[in-house]
Amino acid sequence: MINSEIFDPQEINKAHERIRPYIHQTPVLTSQAIDKIAGCSIHFKCENFQKIGAFKMRGASNAILQLDKTKISAGVVTHSSGNHAQAVAKAAQLIGIPAYIVMPENAPKVKIAAVKDYGGIVSFCEATLVARETTSQKIIEDKTATFIHPYDNKDIIIGQATAAKELIEEVPQLESILCPVGGGGLLAGTILSAQFFSNNCKIYGTEPKGADDAYQSFKQRKLIPQISPNTIADGLLTSLGKINYEIIKDQVSDILLVNDREIKEAMRLIWERMKTIIEPSSAVPLAALLRNKALFKDQKVGIILSGGNVDLKKILSLL
Amino acid sequence: MINSEIFDPQEINKAHERIRPYIHQTPVLTSQAIDKIAGCSIHFKCENFQKIGAFKMRGASNAILQLDKTKISAGVVTHSSGNHAQAVAKAAQLIGIPAYIVMPENAPKVKIAAVKDYGGIVSFCEATLVARETTSQKIIEDKTATFIHPYDNKDIIIGQATAAKELIEEVPQLESILCPVGGGGLLAGTILSAQFFSNNCKIYGTEPKGADDAYQSFKQRKLIPQISPNTIADGLLTSLGKINYEIIKDQVSDILLVNDREIKEAMRLIWERMKTIIEPSSAVPLAALLRNKALFKDQKVGIILSGGNVDLKKILSLL
Repeated sequence: MINSEIFDPQEINKAHERIRPYIHQTPVLTSQAIDKIAGCSIHFKCENFQKIGAFKMRGASNAILQLDKTKISAGVVTHSSGNHAQAVAKAAQLIGIPAYIVMPENAPKVKIAAVKDYGGIVSFCEATLVARETTSQKIIEDKTATFIHPYDNKDIIIGQATAAKELIEEVPQLESILCPVGGGGLLAGTILSAQFFSNNCKIYGTEPKGADDAYQSFKQRKLIPQISPNTIADGLLTSLGKINYEIIKDQVSDILLVNDREIKEAMRLIWERMKTIIEPSSAVPLAALLRNKALFKDQKVGIILSGGNVDLKKILSLL
Repeated sequence: MINSEIFDPQEINKAHERIRPYIHQTPVLTSQAIDKIAGCSIHFKCENFQKIGAFKMRGASNAILQLDKTKISAGVVTHSSGNHAQAVAKAAQLIGIPAYIVMPENAPKVKIAAVKDYGGIVSFCEATLVARETTSQKIIEDKTATFIHPYDNKDIIIGQATAAKELIEEVPQLESILCPVGGGGLLAGTILSAQFFSNNCKIYGTEPKGADDAYQSFKQRKLIPQISPNTIADGLLTSLGKINYEIIKDQVSDILLVNDREIKEAMRLIWERMKTIIEPSSAVPLAALLRNKALFKDQKVGIILSGGNVDLKKILSLL
């Protein structure tokens, strides 16, 4: 059980009210065609329609809004080339404070442009973790800005928990929810919401074989960092966070692995049958469900489609 | 004004209740990024998430459910290679009656497969209107099945009207709604719902320049058939129907034209910013709005995204 001094349902309720003006309540979609293939009834929570195109907007806005008044006006810092960078920039823009985003100099131009478009102040550094951290530290000192970690952060986890909370409130009696696991913020948050708001709904983490540190950590009962990840699911390359691991290790029903071919097939199915654009990481839960049909047979299942930020030309060449 | 003996709000209300078990109440999405570009507040009614991927499911199920008991069990017939064929097949499948679909022998394989997947019984004919009609007529006689016209049919129009009805009920005080016009079923239905359920919401038809028969008919005050259409918006090639024209000619605020380049740009914007897959025909209203920004400045606008059935690989080459 999670230590109730650390997390309680009221915190998630309060976070939800706090961030509501800054996020979309995303729709839940269903597809009879996919249900037929899967042999169960799936409810897709479409965080690809969230602001900035991913659930990360929930955690980033909660973490920023939690800052005390003396700190918040100096702004926030993060290092990321992914959805978290866009989320911090956008949330800071809506709240009216500066966001300093440290990005590797080889980051895709489209991602740099997106961060700038949301008002982020971009600093470039070498493409190493040390360079990212050094550059971030310098900004923290120069600007007295606050660092917002992408996932290993209690306020981020609580923010991400609101996605599953909305899904559980909209679809009663879900028996299982599947979500992808990278750093673990979404999975940890989903576990908390299921514990507090559902009727014994089971939670499954789903992960690419080419970046299986959460699976290894869960099975070996110790936190194992991700080394040299290699998968099409580019949002799930990072190592599981410590706080996240503590929540996940005793609460997740299982972590299911899939390969890149299965991810591509599930992604294509969602694009074609549901008319909705998801990034490869978002296809991992459906791929895992289709690989383990017997486990979910005839169940009422929730899947969190985590995001939809893709380079269309690049991704279509994979289909 | 429309003759109230032909249409009244109760008919649309009844149709809505009748078809509700057979359709999705589709979500309404918004995009701050697109609003910023457009200079107004747009509410997108996502009929691309409708069953069979298009609004046609509404009209087809209403037309079939309206048939009397002695007729319905013999089944229904239509000739189409587009979304109407899929809608008739799917609605008939759900209701449990046969659907005979006449398709040109050169129809895309993916469309033939979709109709068969929904249980449609496909007959092939030469790719001419005469061949389609002769083949359909033979089935009508052999099977005593009922022909379901794709748009020039009162029950179809009333069914399509339920899309705008849901949009108007969900988003109060819309000032304008834009929708594409091909045969005119969606536009005529939208006009009826605006008249009966909105507070003076204006309705605009939007049409590709390469298939501008509705525009020509509206401006010249007489029904002018479409000859040799040429546009990327392959759902809008057909001629405006007679019943539809009678509703549209005095009730539509205007019909706005766009070229294929504008359609492609609007389609790309919706794919990238809204993470939702639409077919080219569905991009026509946003293209028309962006071409006529002054007309909609600061307004609360509705756009009906009519469908999302595209060949992903083919569409990629257009982006």
